[in-house]
Amino acid sequence: MTAYKDLSVEELQSLKKELEAQFAEIKAKNLKLDMSRGKPSKAQLDLSMGMMDVLSSEADLTCEEGVDCRNYGVLDGINEAKQLLSDMSEVPKENIVIFGNSSLNVMYDTISRSMTHGVMGSTPWCKLDKVKFLCPVPGYDRHFAITEHFGIEMINIPMTPEGPNMDMVEALVNNDETVKGIWCVPKYSNPQGYTYSDQTVRRFARLKPAAKDFRIYWDNAYTIHHLHDDNQDYLIEILMACKQEGNPDMVYKFCSTSKISFPGSGIAAIAASTANLADIRKQMTIQTIGHDKVNQLRHARYFKDIHGVVEHMRKHADILRPKFEAVIDVLNKELSGLEIGSWTQPRGGYFISFDSLEGCAKAIVAKAKEAGVIMTPAGATFPYGKDPKDSNIRIAPSFPTPEELSMAANIFVLSVKLVSIDKILGEK
Amino acid sequence: MTAYKDLSVEELQSLKKELEAQFAEIKAKNLKLDMSRGKPSKAQLDLSMGMMDVLSSEADLTCEEGVDCRNYGVLDGINEAKQLLSDMSEVPKENIVIFGNSSLNVMYDTISRSMTHGVMGSTPWCKLDKVKFLCPVPGYDRHFAITEHFGIEMINIPMTPEGPNMDMVEALVNNDETVKGIWCVPKYSNPQGYTYSDQTVRRFARLKPAAKDFRIYWDNAYTIHHLHDDNQDYLIEILMACKQEGNPDMVYKFCSTSKISFPGSGIAAIAASTANLADIRKQMTIQTIGHDKVNQLRHARYFKDIHGVVEHMRKHADILRPKFEAVIDVLNKELSGLEIGSWTQPRGGYFISFDSLEGCAKAIVAKAKEAGVIMTPAGATFPYGKDPKDSNIRIAPSFPTPEELSMAANIFVLSVKLVSIDKILGEK
Repeated sequence: MTAYKDLSVEELQSLKKELEAQFAEIKAKNLKLDMSRGKPSKAQLDLSMGMMDVLSSEADLTCEEGVDCRNYGVLDGINEAKQLLSDMSEVPKENIVIFGNSSLNVMYDTISRSMTHGVMGSTPWCKLDKVKFLCPVPGYDRHFAITEHFGIEMINIPMTPEGPNMDMVEALVNNDETVKGIWCVPKYSNPQGYTYSDQTVRRFARLKPAAKDFRIYWDNAYTIHHLHDDNQDYLIEILMACKQEGNPDMVYKFCSTSKISFPGSGIAAIAASTANLADIRKQMTIQTIGHDKVNQLRHARYFKDIHGVVEHMRKHADILRPKFEAVIDVLNKELSGLEIGSWTQPRGGYFISFDSLEGCAKAIVAKAKEAGVIMTPAGATFPYGKDPKDSNIRIAPSFPTPEELSMAANIFVLSVKLVSIDKILGEK
Repeated sequence: MTAYKDLSVEELQSLKKELEAQFAEIKAKNLKLDMSRGKPSKAQLDLSMGMMDVLSSEADLTCEEGVDCRNYGVLDGINEAKQLLSDMSEVPKENIVIFGNSSLNVMYDTISRSMTHGVMGSTPWCKLDKVKFLCPVPGYDRHFAITEHFGIEMINIPMTPEGPNMDMVEALVNNDETVKGIWCVPKYSNPQGYTYSDQTVRRFARLKPAAKDFRIYWDNAYTIHHLHDDNQDYLIEILMACKQEGNPDMVYKFCSTSKISFPGSGIAAIAASTANLADIRKQMTIQTIGHDKVNQLRHARYFKDIHGVVEHMRKHADILRPKFEAVIDVLNKELSGLEIGSWTQPRGGYFISFDSLEGCAKAIVAKAKEAGVIMTPAGATFPYGKDPKDSNIRIAPSFPTPEELSMAANIFVLSVKLVSIDKILGEK
């Protein structure tokens, strides 16, 4: 394939005509395809339907501690649920607290608590003139929305296939007392599907924060969300790494079963040091009498143990793998060598990240929409919705069928080609 | 019966001896009885076990809007759940938002949001030098814990059988801009079981708050929690009352199914004006993708409609009524005429309130504990845990059996008598 930039104006114009004809043809089909959000598909949801039967009216809803799960009590989670989610988080059971249906909510509450009450005795952030967070980019829009909501200044940190640029992270965290946190999706990152390297995790653990109340917000959303059995990423466990480096309190780790059982009807957890959890419990005991123990029990009895979860994730992988392949096949086949974009080929998680030529992302997303394909809005993967290069596009292949994805991906690559040609022509 | 204060020192001393012997006899039984918290009993929990079967693996978990409840989506509650809880709250469906498993959590979040973001555009409370809340006393300890946690100054407002002292409420709310809220349990109040009179609700609706961001925190926890079929309290609906008086935004109303289905595994809601809900949704959309819709659907399908809930509450009443009667019978029989205490005889809710002679409550609770009866700590019904008269004791009769309650109540009255005699003797 010849790179587009090496084609003549005439060649580009003729190619454009041809592609526009193809686009018009597809557009006439009035398709409606959605690659915008990391939603499991119906087939994936069906995998967990057995969960609806595991607690029948005949069941004894008493948990291991002897507590009737139907009644008040047990602030931080029943033993069975702690076992399951601590195994999933690869931390000891005493380092975990179980919450409600969403880890996003736990993260929000963590920031909110820091605003009003500080962190382990520090000055509440709402009393400070300036609070900053580091945001590896591209990243997860809902993380950035939380920090923006609380008026926290966000600083972009470029991502690499090894994780965030750690030179920048160290320089900022170790020298600027107003830097209070960093958002991380360390495994199969959103949207690139990168996993932080051993060296990156070690550099995180060895940070010497200027702010005592600096915390790493380690959103391990895709901890066991592999696409393959034999080709999986491994991430060093951050709590232990921090403990070994003398920084036991430096990290909050979040996880949930949202993409394991049912999104919105799962259970979430935070893993942290004893001192951090004591700080968290002080607020929790004011906020709630306890989370939904019946649902905790439902999860524990359905999956039985972490091995049960891992086996369950294999079934998710069998559904997701062909979808990732469908999209990546089209990208490889249609765009390789054209030098108008690059894309990731993740081994897990929920997303593929695409980088177009500079200044083209918004136009590509708009173009695809013309033909009925909804993408995540360009810019959404950056704080304040502003991608300085206007080049990153998140592709979410989980919800449509592989056939729909092939169609959607073909519309997407057509859009990429057309917008790129316009850009190159404009520069010639 | 002769009032204790009219007995001679000799009579009191001889009576004390006799009562001490009775107390020693009961104490020797090593009983363990708990009248401390408003927990439903096992028999009450069993009433809702059918809920475990209503969504089987064969069920279609699509809600009325056509959304698959197993997946992400629907921020503020599925239609069926809104219908159910708006009927329960006696407000239009468009004035309700469904939350997670606990109304306490919703109240906490409401205060937390006001601290960090203000109320409908007002200055965030964390930026103000002083924020005050009015607290009708005796009241609910967990309300007071929230306001204390956020450093909000609490002002005691004496309760009457008609509701809070409205002269005080009006004087403070209408003249002091730092007064931002009042905690109310307006029906079958915690702990007295009083229901605010029509006149009280009207005076609430006609308040002219000095602070634009003043809100009434109307915790309608016991809205349909009657003990009788024919002898029920009626409470004027506050949202409409405020709207009629030109104060549509002045109230947040909270409710949940905690004491209808399963405490901790139910669903909660807030009812408020359109403008308030818009303000709340702005934050909600940052905090969560949505609450547990499967559990919302479970509740809606199990109860079918508000009539189903009302019929279900009759079964709760049949279990609770004999328990209230068991306690009140003992109080009436053992303490009437002695002038060493007074107690309420509620027609609904979860509590009986007892007022001892001044300065005796702590001693009575301690005495009862000696014989194995756990009461709510004296003082808990007041802000900062400080009952200025040390006289109020909350009795929670829901959890033990009627037989256990008779025993516990007998120990309680013995404790009241012994402590009162000591007080009277000390004054003679």
